[in-house]
Amino acid sequence: MERLERNRYGKSGVRVTKVVRRGAVHDIYEFDVDIGLKGDFDRVYTEGDNSLCVPTDTMKNMVYVIARQHAFSSPEEFCVLLGRHFVSKFPQVESAHVFVEQTLWNRIAVEGKPHDHAFVKASNARRKAHAYVDRRGNLTLTGGVKDLEVVKSGNSAFEGFLRDQYTTLKETRDRIFGTSIEATWYHNKDTDVNAAYHLAVETILKTFATHESRGVQHTIHEMGKQVLAAVASIHFISFTLPNKHRILANLEPFGLSNENEVFVNTTEPYGEIFGEMSRVSE
Amino acid sequence: MERLERNRYGKSGVRVTKVVRRGAVHDIYEFDVDIGLKGDFDRVYTEGDNSLCVPTDTMKNMVYVIARQHAFSSPEEFCVLLGRHFVSKFPQVESAHVFVEQTLWNRIAVEGKPHDHAFVKASNARRKAHAYVDRRGNLTLTGGVKDLEVVKSGNSAFEGFLRDQYTTLKETRDRIFGTSIEATWYHNKDTDVNAAYHLAVETILKTFATHESRGVQHTIHEMGKQVLAAVASIHFISFTLPNKHRILANLEPFGLSNENEVFVNTTEPYGEIFGEMSRVSE
Amino acid sequence: MERLERNRYGKSGVRVTKVVRRGAVHDIYEFDVDIGLKGDFDRVYTEGDNSLCVPTDTMKNMVYVIARQHAFSSPEEFCVLLGRHFVSKFPQVESAHVFVEQTLWNRIAVEGKPHDHAFVKASNARRKAHAYVDRRGNLTLTGGVKDLEVVKSGNSAFEGFLRDQYTTLKETRDRIFGTSIEATWYHNKDTDVNAAYHLAVETILKTFATHESRGVQHTIHEMGKQVLAAVASIHFISFTLPNKHRILANLEPFGLSNENEVFVNTTEPYGEIFGEMSRVSE
Amino acid sequence: MERLERNRYGKSGVRVTKVVRRGAVHDIYEFDVDIGLKGDFDRVYTEGDNSLCVPTDTMKNMVYVIARQHAFSSPEEFCVLLGRHFVSKFPQVESAHVFVEQTLWNRIAVEGKPHDHAFVKASNARRKAHAYVDRRGNLTLTGGVKDLEVVKSGNSAFEGFLRDQYTTLKETRDRIFGTSIEATWYHNKDTDVNAAYHLAVETILKTFATHESRGVQHTIHEMGKQVLAAVASIHFISFTLPNKHRILANLEPFGLSNENEVFVNTTEPYGEIFGEMSRVSE
Repeated sequence: MERLERNRYGKSGVRVTKVVRRGAVHDIYEFDVDIGLKGDFDRVYTEGDNSLCVPTDTMKNMVYVIARQHAFSSPEEFCVLLGRHFVSKFPQVESAHVFVEQTLWNRIAVEGKPHDHAFVKASNARRKAHAYVDRRGNLTLTGGVKDLEVVKSGNSAFEGFLRDQYTTLKETRDRIFGTSIEATWYHNKDTDVNAAYHLAVETILKTFATHESRGVQHTIHEMGKQVLAAVASIHFISFTLPNKHRILANLEPFGLSNENEVFVNTTEPYGEIFGEMSRVSE
Repeated sequence: MERLERNRYGKSGVRVTKVVRRGAVHDIYEFDVDIGLKGDFDRVYTEGDNSLCVPTDTMKNMVYVIARQHAFSSPEEFCVLLGRHFVSKFPQVESAHVFVEQTLWNRIAVEGKPHDHAFVKASNARRKAHAYVDRRGNLTLTGGVKDLEVVKSGNSAFEGFLRDQYTTLKETRDRIFGTSIEATWYHNKDTDVNAAYHLAVETILKTFATHESRGVQHTIHEMGKQVLAAVASIHFISFTLPNKHRILANLEPFGLSNENEVFVNTTEPYGEIFGEMSRVSE
Repeated sequence: MERLERNRYGKSGVRVTKVVRRGAVHDIYEFDVDIGLKGDFDRVYTEGDNSLCVPTDTMKNMVYVIARQHAFSSPEEFCVLLGRHFVSKFPQVESAHVFVEQTLWNRIAVEGKPHDHAFVKASNARRKAHAYVDRRGNLTLTGGVKDLEVVKSGNSAFEGFLRDQYTTLKETRDRIFGTSIEATWYHNKDTDVNAAYHLAVETILKTFATHESRGVQHTIHEMGKQVLAAVASIHFISFTLPNKHRILANLEPFGLSNENEVFVNTTEPYGEIFGEMSRVSE
Repeated sequence: MERLERNRYGKSGVRVTKVVRRGAVHDIYEFDVDIGLKGDFDRVYTEGDNSLCVPTDTMKNMVYVIARQHAFSSPEEFCVLLGRHFVSKFPQVESAHVFVEQTLWNRIAVEGKPHDHAFVKASNARRKAHAYVDRRGNLTLTGGVKDLEVVKSGNSAFEGFLRDQYTTLKETRDRIFGTSIEATWYHNKDTDVNAAYHLAVETILKTFATHESRGVQHTIHEMGKQVLAAVASIHFISFTLPNKHRILANLEPFGLSNENEVFVNTTEPYGEIFGEMSRVSE
């Protein structure tokens, strides 16, 4: 005999753009939304009885409807609005996960002034948010950033590491350090999530730039420490940093020196470093 | 004050090909490997003290070394060999996760006979394996398949689902059902993992083809049930199936009927359905 | 003063699936279509006068309409049907390019028999076709294959190449040769394009397998020669082959030999070799 | 009998980073390079005689060597240096194509000041350059930009287009217009390519923002016109603009109005518009 242990289903890749008109000035919100529901759906699986099944097509419709019916100024708010809809409207839904990634747009500068309604992609980086909402009123809300690509050509070392017979990596006091930062932070209730986002990203970038890094782990720890110090509303933060390796080109066969000048970018394999930190009372 | 709550680091995207020569006949193993370690690495983060840090570059080397030093016939074996190396050799490593995805090659047929050493990519599908190994000797080993793309143009319905004011989806007794199957199963100790793989994939495909589907959830349940019935060594299996929607083209504006003949493939948004099942004693 | 030198516009990424029912047995055609038109569209650009502009949205509709209204058994036929529609219906259209890529499906085997209406993705490879059609009745029609991934672990050398002071590559008589074949052939009028496709692909694979390769260029030439010899209707064929490098792992630092056994797959940089051949009268 | 009609081969995806140190201030150049050679390579194909074959591995080495040996401040210069190397050094090389895409980095702002050696990815957009160099001393040099993603929520219409029985698109005076601009311009001899780049991109963005667009074609023409007017050194420019459609969400089934507020982003199918313009003497 078999038993259904866990279920989850939903709609992914729901893309929506909302234009908010403040007179001649437009704001633009562009979200990619993933929704996942858990609950009393066993008979949908075991019997093909769809009577309690909220179609994923309806979930998609709700993204557009909620974008139309509600004012919001952050992906976090949008996550909560969507998640609460599903757990409040359908008794069979025990919990909802909603993920939003926001594409970031800057106003095009025309004659030095930001344009009212024309925008250029700000960068690779995307703002992200996630809400977990359940029937009992619990809410876990995170914000974050991903694909924040950075590189530094100084103040980065990697030495003193463990060596065994399979170690060929050379120690270095001066390497290029490139990465693509993904950070996720937990919000307190009633946080100003936009202020938290901007201060966290600014702090992360500044710390990346100025820290004397002894390794990716060391940088992660310092970035977490500085965000926890700078952003009062953040008590918990995690980082995932792939090492976008740039390997010193070996020019010796050509009789050329290479004083940390020419590097070979490699896509794979790549190191990937994770760290999660919290603020503790002293 | 801040505290490091969790750490993990490793090497991802390590690609390796091994050629095994049995006389004139060659076998080829092509793996993509991800390695992640957890353990006593706090000072690497907090102090930049790398003395206990096994460089991810060394992890990469170990993939090649283990491919060279050991005979194996499955990605599962390769996962275990790698995972055991790290927990047995380095006391600071508490646990290792090793993920392997195998690119599958078929022999090219020449005059109807499989060639000794020339291969063509078998399909999009990839075999996968994962080992979790810890210092105390625990081992959790899974096998699976991903990107197994299938489609059926009959025996698929989706009707009787919940309708509310936001539902626009029409019920259908006859739709195209396309998906990309990812399945993961837990192995018992001493399982013949290759036999389990081949029987599981064959059972999944056969069930997909022949089942009277009332929805993706219903198909997942039946595939799980049939695999648990057919493969004695599998006691636990999960599935993730995105719905690769093919929407009936609306040809009414052109005065044309469309009796389930012409469909518009869409990439996004897409439904995604998950289910996890176990075998239970009766 | 500025002048518009060239124009071209169209719809890309139009995805369509057609199910053809022969009683209980279904055939499935899955196409990705790109359409591009050239013609008397200058005022669309210069004045924003859209009166002669066929909207790309209408082009998309035509893909579905033509899929519904016409029987066809190859991507080539579909290209010609679409291209002829635009040049015959709109006098401002001078020429049309239509590209089709076909996703290939195999019937799932159930109890050793191919299923009537359930399919599994045949491979990575895609069949492709292209038609150029103009107002004066000219037609250029090509067929082809892309993403046909192959690898061989014997009968492949690369030696005797030019060396200068910047050459570090070692010569080898025995390397792994992996590539992803793209081939394009020109069809004569009234060719059986399906027979040509199957015979060309079979010949390409067989030649790849059995040829004593002295380099990618050498293999391209032999594949072209064999296709031109085997397929009477093909007079012109081109190949693009990226070198999917697999570099011998350097295990010397670990005191290990490596007799062409363990290789490191690299994604980039990669060699890319192109060759175009024709049949000439003797 | 078969004949080799055309040949071309080279190395693609060569990634290189160069750090230029001006005291404490570092500049960083990150290039992706593709090289293709044509010439007297027939015997490499027909006989597998590699004696005139410059290995693509050597081409890769040259990217690093030239990055080391030469000062440059633009991707255009790098293209020319590489291309000239191959045609001047190897008599069998008739011509070389070199393509470079530059990843753009901005300095991280720390306390409002740009950091000396820490950078954040500027945007999605990439600068590009291409040189065609041949033995007879000809040089064709282009610059450009790609993946310059923009969107505007006003001053964009599409109406008055041709309608036939297959047209379902509604006319609109007010739509969102999103695209990803790729522009390529031909340089005169002795142009300041960096000044041309910055002025061209600024002009493209400003024109996109301020133009009353009647369609993508109309915008392309105006952008070309403005670049040709603003940048004296550019006489020829082409644009490729995919239409990143944002379709008005249909909220009528839910009793909701939608005054150009909520849009559904779609990835495919997509319109793609091309135009090429030149400056002519009046």
